[in-house]
Amino acid sequence: MTPEGRSDPAFLFDLDGTLIDSVYQHVIAWREALMEVGINLSVWKIHRRIGMSGGLFVSALARELESPLDRDTLDALPGLHGEAFLRHYEGVRPLPGASELLATLTELAVPWAIATSGADRYARRGVELLGLPADTPLVTRDQVRYAKPDPDLFLTAAELIGVDIRDSIVVGDSVWDLLAARRARALGVGLLSGGYGREELIYSGAYRVYEDPRDLLAHVDEVGVRRPI
Amino acid sequence: MTPEGRSDPAFLFDLDGTLIDSVYQHVIAWREALMEVGINLSVWKIHRRIGMSGGLFVSALARELESPLDRDTLDALPGLHGEAFLRHYEGVRPLPGASELLATLTELAVPWAIATSGADRYARRGVELLGLPADTPLVTRDQVRYAKPDPDLFLTAAELIGVDIRDSIVVGDSVWDLLAARRARALGVGLLSGGYGREELIYSGAYRVYEDPRDLLAHVDEVGVRRPI
Repeated sequence: MTPEGRSDPAFLFDLDGTLIDSVYQHVIAWREALMEVGINLSVWKIHRRIGMSGGLFVSALARELESPLDRDTLDALPGLHGEAFLRHYEGVRPLPGASELLATLTELAVPWAIATSGADRYARRGVELLGLPADTPLVTRDQVRYAKPDPDLFLTAAELIGVDIRDSIVVGDSVWDLLAARRARALGVGLLSGGYGREELIYSGAYRVYEDPRDLLAHVDEVGVRRPI
Repeated sequence: MTPEGRSDPAFLFDLDGTLIDSVYQHVIAWREALMEVGINLSVWKIHRRIGMSGGLFVSALARELESPLDRDTLDALPGLHGEAFLRHYEGVRPLPGASELLATLTELAVPWAIATSGADRYARRGVELLGLPADTPLVTRDQVRYAKPDPDLFLTAAELIGVDIRDSIVVGDSVWDLLAARRARALGVGLLSGGYGREELIYSGAYRVYEDPRDLLAHVDEVGVRRPI
């Protein structure tokens, strides 16, 4: 007999820094894009904003600069970043254990989806890099009004795979994932593989922090997934 | 009257990530060098080892890999990293406030020096980038037996400028700086500008943590430097 209200967990994964090792390439690409329009922003400040929505990124950027940003510059930035990111893309690899983790969840009939603040065209490349089929449940920036740290991406992903967001475990490498998880009423789990410190993730609401997908897979019992021994 | 044993502070600065914004370029350069010899190491793990001695970096690397490293590969790595770093060097800039901080200390007759785990030829470029004269007190990896987190670099730097290491404030962006500071019996101050989280620096012994050199300059009274109002 199963008590009422009881349900098994589902997983909603961030992509960059969580399943694929692409955060530092995004950082360097933003750095190059900003320098092309004459903006010198410290690289660590860019790093700490990867994974948040583009609109919020630009607001954060405006606060750091001494002179106001003009509309043409703002409009040019996403394209310049995209071009620079593609120049660095050949260095992007799946994170250790990413494919194994997803395959194990599928094998155990644990539902999962990917939800990313990134644009559709880059996210599709990531899905391919992971060797996943084209019909992998994926929600990107293009499908929601507001990206992270708004809860929309994770809420939409839970809907897509037919699970209750309150039974879902959000796995992400950035504080924006964890803030979005809290706002969505999901449980947040952090990974160090995007370059944040352990405590930054804990203070943002991570219930547990693991090194990378391989480490999460090794400890998946700690987040309530039952595996036959 | 000045009580016996009383002395004014001196500053010993790390270079990469502390005075110049070069940590992420070093990270990407190591990533490229490792890929050239067929090693796929997660980028965040490289990031967390920037600033430690090359010998320790290689030991840490060996632990991460499944197959042993051969001598030829090990010998090739520093050169490959150096070449890759120079390819990314044009993106390197002084960190905000770095030159102003050093100029203010000089003006206030507070002794200071730079101590880096980096090689002499890259450190000299950093000194130039900061607009500092060639006779700036500088201790590099080439001048000591063991780089950070051994205390040798900071001990040698204190000797060079004739100050007691116990009156010295070590300013660095990495846990290796802060560990070296403790072992040298100096006071450690952390900067976020190398991309470590605040708590990682505090747990490694940072007495205070600031964003970057500009933020340290704005709060320099907190580490005991008296400025005329």
